[in-house]
Amino acid sequence: MKPEDAYNPGMDRRGRVNWYSELPPVVERLAAAWENKGYCDQAGAMPIPSHESVVRIIHHIRRILFPGYFTQTNINTDNLEYYIGQEVNILFEDLSTQIQLALRYDALNNNACCDCPAEGGEERAAAFIKKLPGIKGVLVTDIEAAMEGDPAAKSRSEVIFSYPGLLAITVYRVANELHKLGVPFIPRIMTEYAHSLTGIDIHPAATIGDSFFIDHGTGVVVGETTVIGSRVRLYQGVTIGALSLPRDAGERLRNKKRHPTIEDDVIIYSNATILGGETVIGARSVIGGNIWLTESVPPDTRVILKRPELVYSDKGRRRLQCGQTRRYKGKRYECTS
Amino acid sequence: MKPEDAYNPGMDRRGRVNWYSELPPVVERLAAAWENKGYCDQAGAMPIPSHESVVRIIHHIRRILFPGYFTQTNINTDNLEYYIGQEVNILFEDLSTQIQLALRYDALNNNACCDCPAEGGEERAAAFIKKLPGIKGVLVTDIEAAMEGDPAAKSRSEVIFSYPGLLAITVYRVANELHKLGVPFIPRIMTEYAHSLTGIDIHPAATIGDSFFIDHGTGVVVGETTVIGSRVRLYQGVTIGALSLPRDAGERLRNKKRHPTIEDDVIIYSNATILGGETVIGARSVIGGNIWLTESVPPDTRVILKRPELVYSDKGRRRLQCGQTRRYKGKRYECTS
Amino acid sequence: MKPEDAYNPGMDRRGRVNWYSELPPVVERLAAAWENKGYCDQAGAMPIPSHESVVRIIHHIRRILFPGYFTQTNINTDNLEYYIGQEVNILFEDLSTQIQLALRYDALNNNACCDCPAEGGEERAAAFIKKLPGIKGVLVTDIEAAMEGDPAAKSRSEVIFSYPGLLAITVYRVANELHKLGVPFIPRIMTEYAHSLTGIDIHPAATIGDSFFIDHGTGVVVGETTVIGSRVRLYQGVTIGALSLPRDAGERLRNKKRHPTIEDDVIIYSNATILGGETVIGARSVIGGNIWLTESVPPDTRVILKRPELVYSDKGRRRLQCGQTRRYKGKRYECTS
Repeated sequence: MKPEDAYNPGMDRRGRVNWYSELPPVVERLAAAWENKGYCDQAGAMPIPSHESVVRIIHHIRRILFPGYFTQTNINTDNLEYYIGQEVNILFEDLSTQIQLALRYDALNNNACCDCPAEGGEERAAAFIKKLPGIKGVLVTDIEAAMEGDPAAKSRSEVIFSYPGLLAITVYRVANELHKLGVPFIPRIMTEYAHSLTGIDIHPAATIGDSFFIDHGTGVVVGETTVIGSRVRLYQGVTIGALSLPRDAGERLRNKKRHPTIEDDVIIYSNATILGGETVIGARSVIGGNIWLTESVPPDTRVILKRPELVYSDKGRRRLQCGQTRRYKGKRYECTS
Repeated sequence: MKPEDAYNPGMDRRGRVNWYSELPPVVERLAAAWENKGYCDQAGAMPIPSHESVVRIIHHIRRILFPGYFTQTNINTDNLEYYIGQEVNILFEDLSTQIQLALRYDALNNNACCDCPAEGGEERAAAFIKKLPGIKGVLVTDIEAAMEGDPAAKSRSEVIFSYPGLLAITVYRVANELHKLGVPFIPRIMTEYAHSLTGIDIHPAATIGDSFFIDHGTGVVVGETTVIGSRVRLYQGVTIGALSLPRDAGERLRNKKRHPTIEDDVIIYSNATILGGETVIGARSVIGGNIWLTESVPPDTRVILKRPELVYSDKGRRRLQCGQTRRYKGKRYECTS
Repeated sequence: MKPEDAYNPGMDRRGRVNWYSELPPVVERLAAAWENKGYCDQAGAMPIPSHESVVRIIHHIRRILFPGYFTQTNINTDNLEYYIGQEVNILFEDLSTQIQLALRYDALNNNACCDCPAEGGEERAAAFIKKLPGIKGVLVTDIEAAMEGDPAAKSRSEVIFSYPGLLAITVYRVANELHKLGVPFIPRIMTEYAHSLTGIDIHPAATIGDSFFIDHGTGVVVGETTVIGSRVRLYQGVTIGALSLPRDAGERLRNKKRHPTIEDDVIIYSNATILGGETVIGARSVIGGNIWLTESVPPDTRVILKRPELVYSDKGRRRLQCGQTRRYKGKRYECTS
């Protein structure tokens, strides 16, 4: 017996508890639990798309779409094309790799192929990059929509620098093109990254027209099968969602149209909820704040909540009667209900 | 008089204003203000738990719980146990240190002890690590709940990669175990980090059963003394909170049960608010969106808002009468109120 | 003809598609699109304020305001003044540079001056730093307000370490001083950074008194021309906003008072919406959750929603009648509507 074996396991030579001795059985259970649950697919020899790389790609694309805004590099009209050219080349390589990983990982998940295809990354990355001028054109209309819709917007630069709505829409438009190119995983990782930064949760498969403006934005949800026209404006907390889902909804409703259609020039105020795959909000309609709608609305219609009844009382919780008025600092307050 | 004293204070030798000369009195006031206010405890020789370290620990735990998902390291069944073993050892050291700092800092805050205890970190870190296989087992049920509840979920991998609900629940389950081990500060720093990433604010002292699913999640609040059963599903904007709090609530209600109990298999739709320590939502009940509830609901009950009255008008703000129908694109729209 | 020209463009020598050959025309279109749209101002030789630097400045200011909380540096009463002094000097240099860039960039945007002024950065940075002791004094009242208002707050340290409301208020108070000093861009970048971390969107131009507490906070919006008194408390999802804005609102309403006035000691519960530039909530009033208000409320008034009518049904969707009671686990549930 070697000397070190003479010590009580769990104690070191000075009689202190050796907490390290507790760890090995935990490690065994952790490794085993994962294997048993059929969750070990991703723990193969094959690397997977990296969250960090996807975030880096988003910021890269943003620098290409808005040159000069998100970098300290000196850019002028002489070097602009050179700058964009260099950035586009780096993007192409980075994106090709990540798409490749996502495709292989998806194939591995679906077919358990041991020798999954190692192609398709460069092709899709190139196809995506060809979409960038179009994306940029649409984003310019989104910036104009912010200038038109928000009195607090001081300049286009302020919108680009600091508006969370524009960030969320930029990421959505990028993710949507990747989604349409059949790229798995990456589009959703992108929109969830924007969601974490802005509180705006737009599914990459949603369809959204030009000149889209979201003000403030925290709590906005736009579901997977939503269709939104041109020049639509949303405020914070608006949900474009699905009707109530039964317990087993996941399986039964996958790939069905479950979310509304919002036609051109609609405005939807804060915290309104619009639900259901057959619900259509007609063009140029205005939906008031806090409204809960599960039915279609014709074009050119304003819908607001009937004035909710409020209960007024004083500090002693004595009810203030309707018709009573109070004066304060020369102002007259009606008890309106 | 030395030459440099000859210059007007606030000017440099070239007669330009020297703004640096304005800084020292500000520094004095800043240092003094802090000392006078009794807020200088943390400015002692003793280091405090580091926000950065706590964030690093969260990501470390996530890599252990979901090996292969959040790292570029090649992991395969041969090296899985070795990989987890190494990660667990690093976690143990890092977590021991931070718990130790939190315990000492808490003791310092409470007792003003000059020689606060330097023990308890390793013991609690080891106890926490022993809980990891159990946490992993519960998280597998949470992933299954997402697959079951969300038609947009394409695969378990997508849920792990990108679902904010799973991130918030993972961090809550970790923080809750640390809370139960009596670790101060760190659990709340952890859940607030998840809150900042997801908009989901779960207090680490809440009690939550297995198979928990939060969809979208922005704006969800789950209060300190909430009790939630198994297989519960929440949507964005749901508050499980306290009844209205008087001005001096902080002192009087500390450590009282102030938040509801949600029994097994309950579904609560978006933006519902459920308040009060005696409020119980019975098993298998369904709570509709936008509802404000301060009373208990029996099991197996559906509760929805009475259809709110909506006011429809046309663009000229002329009221559209009830009973009137309009046609648009072959669809018939009822004026429903 | 050189050998390389013999290859079909788009193919490499081994006959594989060369996707790189697709990139140059895209780069040209990207560069051209930007120039044509009049959006190329920022792509000048002049550097612009950097988002990264502004974030670094926020964290710097936080370390000065709360020494010891957000750094691992050992700070004690002997070195406190030295520590703050050093931090203030670094802040001064960093902030001067960024303000300078923002001023030049703003002048460039407005005047298209080719030789825009290179002054004003140091002056404003020094003026801002002189405000820091005052900001710190107000933040101490904000911390006390959190202790008073939140039963879950265990200590002042916990509030400083982990409360998102305090983070948002700190950044707002800093941004508001910079806004009052006429610094462009930077204040809004700051508050949008806090918005992204906390879900709390406070415009830097809003006016807010001492002892301000926001609990949970996700979804809170405080608009540009809002005026809030002392000792006001807000919960998650509260909007202090503008009335519905017409399509061309951006231009017509810029710089008008569009947001409410909230007097001293008001409490506004979760998800309440208060709108309009002439709306005044009188001192000491309490506004209930979920309320939608577009009119003034006198002082010392409680306003709550009339109890909404709920519809109860059983699992077979059979309506449960009013007056009916059910028993479950010894409790009696009234059907209340």
